[in-house]
Amino acid sequence: MEPRVSIITLGVANLARSRAFYEALGFHASSASQGDIVFFQAGGLGIALYPRAALAEDANVAEAGSGFRGLTIAHNVRAKEEVGAVLAEAQAAGGRMVKPAQDVFWGGHSGYFADPDGHLWEVAWNPHLPILADGSVRFPE
Amino acid sequence: MEPRVSIITLGVANLARSRAFYEALGFHASSASQGDIVFFQAGGLGIALYPRAALAEDANVAEAGSGFRGLTIAHNVRAKEEVGAVLAEAQAAGGRMVKPAQDVFWGGHSGYFADPDGHLWEVAWNPHLPILADGSVRFPE
Repeated sequence: MEPRVSIITLGVANLARSRAFYEALGFHASSASQGDIVFFQAGGLGIALYPRAALAEDANVAEAGSGFRGLTIAHNVRAKEEVGAVLAEAQAAGGRMVKPAQDVFWGGHSGYFADPDGHLWEVAWNPHLPILADGSVRFPE
Repeated sequence: MEPRVSIITLGVANLARSRAFYEALGFHASSASQGDIVFFQAGGLGIALYPRAALAEDANVAEAGSGFRGLTIAHNVRAKEEVGAVLAEAQAAGGRMVKPAQDVFWGGHSGYFADPDGHLWEVAWNPHLPILADGSVRFPE
């Protein structure tokens, strides 16, 4: 298995609402979006929106589930000040502020928002992790 | 907000077990891994492993949660035959086969495995979505 991720698929309750949320945040829906799936290019991978029940069915698992999902998605920014700005954007777009921007123990600055379906996004400024010109991040070997 | 993802953090019950699982699958732990966090470079982003309880605390949410997480991670491959091969690798590494490789309605071939903490990975061959030389995928505008 090559160490890479191609798509993160977010199960959603209301496709139009979630599409509008991500579009308001600056994501652009690909023309490959059709029927009940929406694709956004997100750097070198895709974020897909798909009805939650259909996603469970596709994965061959029971749909029931609640509470913390045990997983977060981080969006790193280039400057400390951008953390609060992106969290404010997410809130204005209909997201929920989960943790306001604050200094964190590892030397960075971060906060969290939840999308309309409760998927957790961390917005972080990490002075130890450079963001390349193309938006990707590079960890030391 | 720029449309990109920097890190996917997987909450885990046993850091050593999860690290060994992903290493067996071909992920390389960065030297930035320390204490209770492990980083893997995965294309242009990172996959991090972090104790589930600490992740919930970091996100300022209650730790309780069970069942379907409403979210999947896809790893696309370049050839149809690779789907079954990667699923077999994941099983050999200690993952759980959730859906064996099969032809799917959208014209591709896919299956799912769960990592030691139940995080769902789809392994997919999608003839409509080219994989570039660097491993990234590109959706039509």
